[in-house]
Amino acid sequence: MADNRAVAYEGPGKVQVIDTPYPEFELKDGPGVNPANVGRKVPHGVILKTIATNICGSDQHMVRGRTTAPQDLVLGHEITGEVIEVGPDVEFIKVGDICSVPFNISCGRCRNCKERKTGICLNVNPDRPGSAYGYVDMGGWVGGQAQFVLVPYADWNLLKFPDPEQALEKILDLTMLSDILPTGFHGAVTSGVTVGSTVYIAGAGPVGLAAAASALLLGAAVVIVADMNDDRLAQARSFGCETINLTEGDPQDQIEQILGVPEVDCAIDAVGFEAKGHGKDAEEAPATVLNSLMEITRAGGELGIPGLYVTGDPGGIDEAAQKGSLSLSLGTGWAKSLAFTTGQCPVMKYNRQLMMAILYDRIHIAKAVNAKAIPLEDAPKGYAEFDHGAATKFVLDPNGYLGASAA
Amino acid sequence: MADNRAVAYEGPGKVQVIDTPYPEFELKDGPGVNPANVGRKVPHGVILKTIATNICGSDQHMVRGRTTAPQDLVLGHEITGEVIEVGPDVEFIKVGDICSVPFNISCGRCRNCKERKTGICLNVNPDRPGSAYGYVDMGGWVGGQAQFVLVPYADWNLLKFPDPEQALEKILDLTMLSDILPTGFHGAVTSGVTVGSTVYIAGAGPVGLAAAASALLLGAAVVIVADMNDDRLAQARSFGCETINLTEGDPQDQIEQILGVPEVDCAIDAVGFEAKGHGKDAEEAPATVLNSLMEITRAGGELGIPGLYVTGDPGGIDEAAQKGSLSLSLGTGWAKSLAFTTGQCPVMKYNRQLMMAILYDRIHIAKAVNAKAIPLEDAPKGYAEFDHGAATKFVLDPNGYLGASAA
Amino acid sequence: MADNRAVAYEGPGKVQVIDTPYPEFELKDGPGVNPANVGRKVPHGVILKTIATNICGSDQHMVRGRTTAPQDLVLGHEITGEVIEVGPDVEFIKVGDICSVPFNISCGRCRNCKERKTGICLNVNPDRPGSAYGYVDMGGWVGGQAQFVLVPYADWNLLKFPDPEQALEKILDLTMLSDILPTGFHGAVTSGVTVGSTVYIAGAGPVGLAAAASALLLGAAVVIVADMNDDRLAQARSFGCETINLTEGDPQDQIEQILGVPEVDCAIDAVGFEAKGHGKDAEEAPATVLNSLMEITRAGGELGIPGLYVTGDPGGIDEAAQKGSLSLSLGTGWAKSLAFTTGQCPVMKYNRQLMMAILYDRIHIAKAVNAKAIPLEDAPKGYAEFDHGAATKFVLDPNGYLGASAA
Amino acid sequence: MADNRAVAYEGPGKVQVIDTPYPEFELKDGPGVNPANVGRKVPHGVILKTIATNICGSDQHMVRGRTTAPQDLVLGHEITGEVIEVGPDVEFIKVGDICSVPFNISCGRCRNCKERKTGICLNVNPDRPGSAYGYVDMGGWVGGQAQFVLVPYADWNLLKFPDPEQALEKILDLTMLSDILPTGFHGAVTSGVTVGSTVYIAGAGPVGLAAAASALLLGAAVVIVADMNDDRLAQARSFGCETINLTEGDPQDQIEQILGVPEVDCAIDAVGFEAKGHGKDAEEAPATVLNSLMEITRAGGELGIPGLYVTGDPGGIDEAAQKGSLSLSLGTGWAKSLAFTTGQCPVMKYNRQLMMAILYDRIHIAKAVNAKAIPLEDAPKGYAEFDHGAATKFVLDPNGYLGASAA
Repeated sequence: MADNRAVAYEGPGKVQVIDTPYPEFELKDGPGVNPANVGRKVPHGVILKTIATNICGSDQHMVRGRTTAPQDLVLGHEITGEVIEVGPDVEFIKVGDICSVPFNISCGRCRNCKERKTGICLNVNPDRPGSAYGYVDMGGWVGGQAQFVLVPYADWNLLKFPDPEQALEKILDLTMLSDILPTGFHGAVTSGVTVGSTVYIAGAGPVGLAAAASALLLGAAVVIVADMNDDRLAQARSFGCETINLTEGDPQDQIEQILGVPEVDCAIDAVGFEAKGHGKDAEEAPATVLNSLMEITRAGGELGIPGLYVTGDPGGIDEAAQKGSLSLSLGTGWAKSLAFTTGQCPVMKYNRQLMMAILYDRIHIAKAVNAKAIPLEDAPKGYAEFDHGAATKFVLDPNGYLGASAA
Repeated sequence: MADNRAVAYEGPGKVQVIDTPYPEFELKDGPGVNPANVGRKVPHGVILKTIATNICGSDQHMVRGRTTAPQDLVLGHEITGEVIEVGPDVEFIKVGDICSVPFNISCGRCRNCKERKTGICLNVNPDRPGSAYGYVDMGGWVGGQAQFVLVPYADWNLLKFPDPEQALEKILDLTMLSDILPTGFHGAVTSGVTVGSTVYIAGAGPVGLAAAASALLLGAAVVIVADMNDDRLAQARSFGCETINLTEGDPQDQIEQILGVPEVDCAIDAVGFEAKGHGKDAEEAPATVLNSLMEITRAGGELGIPGLYVTGDPGGIDEAAQKGSLSLSLGTGWAKSLAFTTGQCPVMKYNRQLMMAILYDRIHIAKAVNAKAIPLEDAPKGYAEFDHGAATKFVLDPNGYLGASAA
Repeated sequence: MADNRAVAYEGPGKVQVIDTPYPEFELKDGPGVNPANVGRKVPHGVILKTIATNICGSDQHMVRGRTTAPQDLVLGHEITGEVIEVGPDVEFIKVGDICSVPFNISCGRCRNCKERKTGICLNVNPDRPGSAYGYVDMGGWVGGQAQFVLVPYADWNLLKFPDPEQALEKILDLTMLSDILPTGFHGAVTSGVTVGSTVYIAGAGPVGLAAAASALLLGAAVVIVADMNDDRLAQARSFGCETINLTEGDPQDQIEQILGVPEVDCAIDAVGFEAKGHGKDAEEAPATVLNSLMEITRAGGELGIPGLYVTGDPGGIDEAAQKGSLSLSLGTGWAKSLAFTTGQCPVMKYNRQLMMAILYDRIHIAKAVNAKAIPLEDAPKGYAEFDHGAATKFVLDPNGYLGASAA
Repeated sequence: MADNRAVAYEGPGKVQVIDTPYPEFELKDGPGVNPANVGRKVPHGVILKTIATNICGSDQHMVRGRTTAPQDLVLGHEITGEVIEVGPDVEFIKVGDICSVPFNISCGRCRNCKERKTGICLNVNPDRPGSAYGYVDMGGWVGGQAQFVLVPYADWNLLKFPDPEQALEKILDLTMLSDILPTGFHGAVTSGVTVGSTVYIAGAGPVGLAAAASALLLGAAVVIVADMNDDRLAQARSFGCETINLTEGDPQDQIEQILGVPEVDCAIDAVGFEAKGHGKDAEEAPATVLNSLMEITRAGGELGIPGLYVTGDPGGIDEAAQKGSLSLSLGTGWAKSLAFTTGQCPVMKYNRQLMMAILYDRIHIAKAVNAKAIPLEDAPKGYAEFDHGAATKFVLDPNGYLGASAA
């Protein structure tokens, strides 16, 4: 058996690169694998040699100890790689193909997949609809912050890049297709962004920046990004966004200064349940973002909510937050006829068209999110810096394709 | 000046039929009229002789004293009538036309109206987008539970029935076009009801029943209506719905018995902020309905929320409720990728097509909601019976067109 | 090897029931099999024991000699059956399942399938996008008017009925899910039918009748079906349609008599390229239907065109028709801002929801199209009667599930 | 009465600037005014002092004598101006407002307007749905290539620019909102252009270039523009399009060289009925464009057809063309499941959002179409140059706002 190295969760605040088995065409028992999935055959899978695999903000929820993730869970759901082995049932994907892997695992055979709702596939997670690689309570599919990873239902799940050479040239952009670019795009689409829209985005982390770049790609007139982190806001300004620093208070006045009116057409929550209040030294206040968005969205507008909200949060600020309940001013939303869309982005719905936009230079997402390749072995450092608010999207380079050198 | 008689709010629990001025083509000062609207010219309006005008559940919020409605406010926003005078700017509507009036007043000239969002017109209510006749904080347009009523922007707002004689024959159905039928239909549409859907509707009042009839008209496979009122549930069964009595506990088990699975495709909240908990002797619990709908809607489903949620409720059960905040299990909704649509129904978006469905006998909404015509002078009795849970939709007959006789 | 009996095309005007090999999990050479498909492995397939398989109007194009179909081509693309063998790659479909087969074969793994466009799958027909069982120039997948048939990509393609016993009770309805009900429904949807629409359908054959029943299910106010065959028109009237006999001339006057206006909201072409002119003794005139629909559709309306138009027709009336060119009054359509949707129905987009409508008694399609089960051996007679205009949808019963007895 | 100067059609190949009456709030008799519109009161109108008014390709159809336009018809339907008088029924538009006028005149009060289909308003043209200023058979509303022009239903029709000063700065861009930018955008939208699309546009005149710029604004990956005029193709390349010169033959090979595949996702016909065949010295062949688009659009694609097709063309190449009939290879389209959208662009559906895109510098349409301001008196020269294929969009400056000096 070949060796494999992977990033694993080892306890609150701690990740480590460990030795781990090379994948087989079967889901073996291991940390976090759902018993009902143990021994599941994967003849429809392929084994990828990872080219790029990114650290995601939603990994941080686990690493901060805000979930029940078990020790030694291999992390990573943002995966791009080269196919090196194909299972016997794979018909169209071939060895040597370079492919993007949607973070949501889906079967391509259930009602939801047939309806393009691959974020809530019915056949991959025994607990509930929807799954992802390397994530707690998602069925136990092994994470991809590793040299090698198994991708099930490969003909269905994989997006093959048309030209391997060109793909490697644009790999820091293309690696964003596995999650944050489609996730940000989904946030923009479900908030109703179209040509000429004014858009407000809460959160200038990678998903917020991807939502901003997506909104511009969709033709938005003005994109306003709000955060408390100056470096991240500078990142947003670098590709043409307006910005608001929330340590200076509520955003409504600043919106009015930018637009002439104190409201926007479309609003995106790229923060989720670990939200803080506005103003200097604000503390965690999970309903802040959504209540704020209802205030600043014009009547008839829509809220896209790619930011994660959970059903249980052991670290929540109070009993309600710990069970995932939020105190929402729904009356405000109702009076304005607002609509709200929540949930995981169904990556497959968007990744092909976004790949085209990247390949033809219509979007420069790596630059927008300040992508930086680092060696796999430096993952712990990357996690730590990202957690401290670095305005950087860390891309792990487990097999040297990216030529990343230690920082 | 001609006489006029109208139903007015006189204080918590009290409505009365009063003398009131015959309308002119100007919005005069009066109870609840926004100062900025006083003296507003209405050359684009018509005066209707009311044929039918219904008591609505949302009127009850005012009558129960749950709002800041002033004394002598003339009530009524569900209006059908005959045009007897036209303002100088009216070009296409003619004296003698029989028309349905959408409850939401709109100008036909602002951005929102041009986008078909007539529920949030920008030009009719100085306080905020959206207006209605005879309703607190809606600008002060005089209510239509009266013999005569002024309808502004008549060429835009009125839906003319093609044949006056036929209209009078079907008047008990057509009168539902002013509010509850489109409102229920909007609930169904925004919850994603389509051919073959399974649908759950919380609330068997007139809007819930209209949503149920609408869901069937849209081709739903199964419509399940839930309430605590047996008479209203019997009404739902009368046109082919399944029903659940919520005094017997949470609906999930009963849904499973009906469908074989404990969830539905689409869910509609036809209750709103005065919701009660489930089970026998349940007390008011404003988030019950929405939290329950998130449980029983399948992943990827949608919630239509025509039930009213307010920004302030003096009678709310606690401080949060009094400012319109609800404790919602948003984590549950997010994990299932649910979407939510709130707000007033933009009646004009649907009333023409629903009129066609009525005229060609595709829906029998009067029967579905158990419409009953009563004289205008009996309005107080109608309000009281409706408040006590009568499974009846009361239609006032201010001018004898309906031949209603005192009960 | 087990025996198999199947209906085959033997030459213009001639079909016959022949002995044919029992299917294997491989596409063998045979009449009409595309060389590039010969020897194609089908481990993802299942073998169905046919329960019901219908004669379709599009089969008639071949049988009339209007195509290049080869001798001994096994016909049949409307298939419902019981799974009796599953290939090694099939994961969710099980032996004993009773399933409907969409007539369009698709892989579930290409761009078009992922976009729900299963009528133009890129991986099943070497000649061009899209395929079907038992059809000329469609790749060579063997037809299903047989006792046994191979269905590829079974997890993706098959629609499993929830309860086998219930399925057999409603089998004459459910058998219409393989083609004509979704095809008629697609015609209705793409012509814009919604609640309250007025609809005109050219053609009262099974697809036209299915479109009519679909339009009613979608909430249409009035459905007008036009044909030259009185029996078929009587069939349309039996479930609530208005009808027009085109031997009496152009339909516009008759539409005006029915609706009060000489136009409809939505128009459906359920005839296709073998259209005749209007009036008594009209001859073939392939552009008649489309030009007529442009006349009678209101400005802003849409035309759904499920009726088949071909790229080559050896029996066409003139040179233009023989290469599939039509003389269309596009100026008329343009002046009215009409939109047109053509092509095979992507059955999978609709069959689950239509199954629900059948199972919950919201549509009675077998009755609407006058379904009649006959033994497989009577297929030649069924073809002949159908070709002579019988107002009957013939359902073949190859294995006795339907208890059909010889007529 | 104040003087007025206007551009008029004087006969085939001949336009002239003439004296004409200053408008009143009534539609007076005159060349091309429909008798049923003579004397129509327009209290809902305003009088604009024209700031910019463009020469349009569709004006050329009249000027070339391909219509029944009468002598002295005042031309011009692309109008931007300053409000100098308001009719008594105008409520929200004020004197001094600078506004864009959608070329399609609409009432804001009929079923079609309420459904946003302002291109086919039912109340402005006695002959048929839809109207425009200064156009033959459109009811007789006087054209706007004039110093002053009457705009009816002004509250509904006019798009007011938020800041007059800013508007004058960007006036060469904003003047394109009256027709060609929304028309090109409509072509792009109805051909299905979205993020990542590959797009083919037939015709590099102003509408084709506007469609190209729109496609890019919508996020298209690649936009290919085809024409026979090198100057116009150079214009397309100037803002990032690929181009194909059709004098070199059919476009399919050139598409393959650009994209690697011989087909596109989306196709737009920006030519219309005066199309020529492909290749050097090609002659008029009205079906060329549409048949070509069906060839090069991928299965499942859509065709947007903003190019004008007429119901009668006295100059048509044969009898069929003279009555607006085209020989279309519909079989090809059907086999590929193509959809087609025809008709006038409903400008109001798009102009507000496109204005936002202009005001926030997301599109530079004046540069894309090479806008050039010329004095009103130079209109005849502008018409002549445009007819000879100048790669220029001529903007008339009737009142000196643009500072145009004679060329």
